[in-house]
Amino acid sequence: MRKLFQYPLCGFSRAVRVTLSEKRLDYEMVYEAPWAPSDALVEYNMLGQVPVLVDIGGTAISGGSAIREYLNEVYPEVELIGSEPVQKAESRQITDWFDHIFYKDVYYPIIKEKILKRFAKNIDRSPDPAYVRIANSKLAEHLDYISWLIDRRNWLAGKNFSIADIHAASFISVLDYLGIIQWNKYEMAKSWYARIKSRPSFRSVLNDNLPQVPPNADYSNLDF
Amino acid sequence: MRKLFQYPLCGFSRAVRVTLSEKRLDYEMVYEAPWAPSDALVEYNMLGQVPVLVDIGGTAISGGSAIREYLNEVYPEVELIGSEPVQKAESRQITDWFDHIFYKDVYYPIIKEKILKRFAKNIDRSPDPAYVRIANSKLAEHLDYISWLIDRRNWLAGKNFSIADIHAASFISVLDYLGIIQWNKYEMAKSWYARIKSRPSFRSVLNDNLPQVPPNADYSNLDF
Repeated sequence: MRKLFQYPLCGFSRAVRVTLSEKRLDYEMVYEAPWAPSDALVEYNMLGQVPVLVDIGGTAISGGSAIREYLNEVYPEVELIGSEPVQKAESRQITDWFDHIFYKDVYYPIIKEKILKRFAKNIDRSPDPAYVRIANSKLAEHLDYISWLIDRRNWLAGKNFSIADIHAASFISVLDYLGIIQWNKYEMAKSWYARIKSRPSFRSVLNDNLPQVPPNADYSNLDF
Repeated sequence: MRKLFQYPLCGFSRAVRVTLSEKRLDYEMVYEAPWAPSDALVEYNMLGQVPVLVDIGGTAISGGSAIREYLNEVYPEVELIGSEPVQKAESRQITDWFDHIFYKDVYYPIIKEKILKRFAKNIDRSPDPAYVRIANSKLAEHLDYISWLIDRRNWLAGKNFSIADIHAASFISVLDYLGIIQWNKYEMAKSWYARIKSRPSFRSVLNDNLPQVPPNADYSNLDF
């Protein structure tokens, strides 16, 4: 059986889970806390970072974008990037936006403040709530960007659902789990996220429920 | 003519420059300061982030990994990722390591402290030199990882020079420009970086010289 080392509140881990489900590939999840990686994980990845996918046959791949490209190459039946270079570039550059810019400006500062600082023992504790305020104001810019795109196209990268939607929604869903997003301020982005939430591939993510960090009340609600 | 909007001390911009040179593709550079993006750049990328490549024909692509995949698809004559899925996954996952983990743990904290805080007006100034100390200690872990790989293989992803070497060296070269790396502590990593420095594709990067932030004395020296 395919194995995915993952942490439920990791955006990259979620993106792999949704990609696997969209491609109808079975897998089993191995829970990893980012601050206490298992020996099995460290065997595959020296720094103990999730996600790591161990495919049937034993090929192990670390990291969100390497796994995404691998799955699209090896299991092309369900197309999630696009079929020609310009369209692929469009879905990859929007994915990049979320993987890098959204990650650095919004996602990581919030995760660090709200999760890592609560559980990790060795983390640097210097950033303060001012960081979260800045990240929240940047969050608004990014949700406006989603609204801008969705006002012009069906899905983030164009006509078809793609990795851009998967990566964007995976990061956003972690913040939504934490109850940070005031959806009533972002009608267009909300309509897009509602469509994502109703996809069968997103069901497993919406069922995540960590006892130490319970989800916001509307997190799994399709009518939020 | 192909156009690259870039900032000389941006690791992703450097990676695109080296990739273009390795593939023997001509391009002209458009200088962009990250804290003051031009209107032309913002036309292509709402947040004014570099790198943006505008290819012959006008296709514009934002972001290091989207540009990398695009160039490898559209200009496959010089192969820089690999020829089959497992080999591609290996070069992409090491590239990911530098694009994400090295970026977050080492590169961004140092760039923020040493460059962005000096020039950008609107940046949050809360992180302090303690951050740079933590980043420096993580830098040692990453250079040890390079040494570990180079002790086992010719290049970072295996037998052949690849995007993994390009991305790793691009980020590291920015830190080296700033004079942060004590190469005598990392013999194996140094031998790898010396081979990179002597490649013709790296010459343009070694010629970078910003008047406001001059390079370390040994920066462009092949015998460092």
